Amino acid sequence: MKRVYLDHNATTPLRAEARDAMVAAMDVAGNPSSVHSEGRAAKSLMEKARRQVSEALGAGNADIVFVSGSTEAAALACAGRGLQGSEIEHEAVLSWVEPSLDVHGDGAVAVSDPAGSTLQLANSETGIIQDLPEGLAVSDITQAFGKIPFSYAWAGVGMVFVSAHKLGGPKGVGALVIPQGYDLSAQLVGGGQEMGRRAGTENIIGIAGFAAAAEAAQKDLADGRWDEIARLRDLMEERIADGAGVPIFVGKAAKRLPNTSCYVTPGWKGETQVMNMDLSGFAISAGSACSSGKVKASKVLRAMGFDEADAACATRVSLGIETTEADVLAFADAWVDRYKKMRAKAA
Amino acid sequence: MKRVYLDHNATTPLRAEARDAMVAAMDVAGNPSSVHSEGRAAKSLMEKARRQVSEALGAGNADIVFVSGSTEAAALACAGRGLQGSEIEHEAVLSWVEPSLDVHGDGAVAVSDPAGSTLQLANSETGIIQDLPEGLAVSDITQAFGKIPFSYAWAGVGMVFVSAHKLGGPKGVGALVIPQGYDLSAQLVGGGQEMGRRAGTENIIGIAGFAAAAEAAQKDLADGRWDEIARLRDLMEERIADGAGVPIFVGKAAKRLPNTSCYVTPGWKGETQVMNMDLSGFAISAGSACSSGKVKASKVLRAMGFDEADAACATRVSLGIETTEADVLAFADAWVDRYKKMRAKAA
Repeated sequence: MKRVYLDHNATTPLRAEARDAMVAAMDVAGNPSSVHSEGRAAKSLMEKARRQVSEALGAGNADIVFVSGSTEAAALACAGRGLQGSEIEHEAVLSWVEPSLDVHGDGAVAVSDPAGSTLQLANSETGIIQDLPEGLAVSDITQAFGKIPFSYAWAGVGMVFVSAHKLGGPKGVGALVIPQGYDLSAQLVGGGQEMGRRAGTENIIGIAGFAAAAEAAQKDLADGRWDEIARLRDLMEERIADGAGVPIFVGKAAKRLPNTSCYVTPGWKGETQVMNMDLSGFAISAGSACSSGKVKASKVLRAMGFDEADAACATRVSLGIETTEADVLAFADAWVDRYKKMRAKAA
Repeated sequence: MKRVYLDHNATTPLRAEARDAMVAAMDVAGNPSSVHSEGRAAKSLMEKARRQVSEALGAGNADIVFVSGSTEAAALACAGRGLQGSEIEHEAVLSWVEPSLDVHGDGAVAVSDPAGSTLQLANSETGIIQDLPEGLAVSDITQAFGKIPFSYAWAGVGMVFVSAHKLGGPKGVGALVIPQGYDLSAQLVGGGQEMGRRAGTENIIGIAGFAAAAEAAQKDLADGRWDEIARLRDLMEERIADGAGVPIFVGKAAKRLPNTSCYVTPGWKGETQVMNMDLSGFAISAGSACSSGKVKASKVLRAMGFDEADAACATRVSLGIETTEADVLAFADAWVDRYKKMRAKAA
C-alpha cells in the first residue's frame, strides 16, 4: 500500500539538496578547530553554511550560532531571563518562561511588554501565525521558517531560532540568531567553538545539510510553491467538510501556515483518528510530535478556549512541498469513510 | 602534493560503514516521537543504533543517552556534582570539576576518593592510559574508545562518555552511559526524548553513523588492527630519534594509546612545527584541537612537570586505522629535515 505522509510539521523528509550537501561534507575530514589545511577546509565549510543560513533568514546584520536544534536554542535564548510567554508556545520554550500571556479565542496572543516576552511566529499544531510586536525579545520561528516570508532584519525581534528538520534539513541541528556581538552566555562550555557561545566539535555534516535545505526552501517560497500547497490544504478541508460536515477547523479565519490543517471532531479522539488513519496508509498527528506519546488534550487548543473533551478530539494534518492533489483527496475520502463507520458503530 | 593526515586524535575521517548507515538513514523520514508507521520506523532505527553502541561499549547492563558529543555528555555527567579531577582532563570536563587531583611525572593521576572523582581513560595529547579505580564516578573515555579494549560492565565506573567522530563516526554526536534506571537530571528540557534525559528531536542520521562506526571500530580492535598501528608509531618515533636525537617522547615508558606520539623539541615551538609540517603536506597538532586556536603551552604537559618553555614546544602526531608505513616514514623524514634546517638557521 502506498503511504501518504501528512505530518510534515512533526518532521519533513530530507531534501535532495540537503542530502547532496551532506554526502559532500562527509569527505571533509578535518576538525574546524585545527589550524592545518584539513582543519581550515572544515572551518571554511562551516562558514559557508553560516552565510547560507544567514541569507535565508535575512540575518546579515546578526550572528548565527549553530546548535543541536530548537530545544537547545530555546534554552540559550530564554533561560534565566524571566521572559513571559503563553501556553501555546512549544514545551521547549515553555520550560523557560512564565506562561502569563493571554491567548484569544482566535489564537492571537496579547503581548504587553515585548522586550520581556517571547512569542512564536506560527503554531505547530494549528498553523496560526502571530503578528510579532516590534521589540519582542525572542521568537520561535521553527515552524514558520521556510513556509512563510520572514526576514530577521525587518522583524524587529531580538533573537529567533529554527530547526533544520522542519524545512528539509536533517534532525539534530538548528540555529539561534542573535544581535551582532551580543554577549550570549554559553550553556555548553569547555571549548571555544561558535565564538565561545556553544562549545563542542561542530556537527559539520548536519550543518551543511541544514544550510542547503534553508537555501532551497527560500527558493521554493519565492517561487510560490507554498501557495499551491495552501490551495491543496483548502481543497482537503472543503472535501472533509462536504463529506462529514462535522469538524471544526481551528484558525480557519486567522492567518495560518499554508500547509497546516487542525480540526476538532467532537466525540472522536485524536489518538484514535491517528491510529485509524495510520492503518489506512496516512500519517497524521494529534498535537505536536514531541508530546504525542502522551494521550492528553492539546494544551494549545485548551488555551484557545476549547474544553477538555473537544481538545482531545483534535488532529493535525500538515502538508509538505511534495504533497499532491491526489494525496489530499485520498486522505479526505479515507477520513470521511472512517468517520462514517465510527458514527455508524456509535449509533 | 599528497597530504598525509596524522591528527586523528583531533578527528578521524568518516568510516565507510558510517557513511553507508548515514545515507541509508536519510530515507527514514519520520520523527521518532510520532506514533504512526513512519515515526515507529524512525524509533526502531534509533533503538537499533542504541543496541549497537551499547554492545560496542560492553554496556548491556546500562542506559545509553544520545547527546551532541562529549562536551554535552561531560556536562550531563559532571555538572553540579562537585567532583574532583585533574588538570589533564579535557576542558569540557575541567569546566565542571575541582582540579585538585595530583598528576605524577609519568602522567598517572592519584585518585583518593573514586566515588567523588572523574578520570579520563586516555589523554588526547599524550595518549597516556590511566588505571581507572574501582568505583570511579565518571570517566571520559572519548579518546580511548575504539583504540583499546574497554567494557563498561567490567570497568566498575559509574558513568562514561564518548564522541562518535573520534572513531570514524560523524561530528556532533556522542553518548553518555549511565547505570540502568539512574535518575539523571536533564539539562536540555522541553520534550520526552531519551526517556526524559535529553529533550530535542534526535540526530537520527548522525546516530546511525555513530552506531555503525562503533561496531566497525570494535571489530578492527578485535582483529588487532591497532597493534599494527602501534608498530608504525614506534617505527616513526625511532626514525625521528635516530635522525634528530632531540625530542623527548612523552609517556614512552607508560601505557599509551597505540596511535599517539607526543614529543617535546626544546627551542622549537609546537605551533611553528604544525605550520611547517602543514606546508610540507602533513597535518599534526600542538595540543588538543579544541584549544589549538590559542597559542599556549600545553596544560597537560605543565601538569606533568614540564616547564612553560618546553611545554610550548610539544607536538602530537596521531595515527589512524588507514595510516601506512610509507606515511609515517615520510613524516619522520620531513620532520627531521625541517628540524635540521631550523637548527642551521638558529646556529
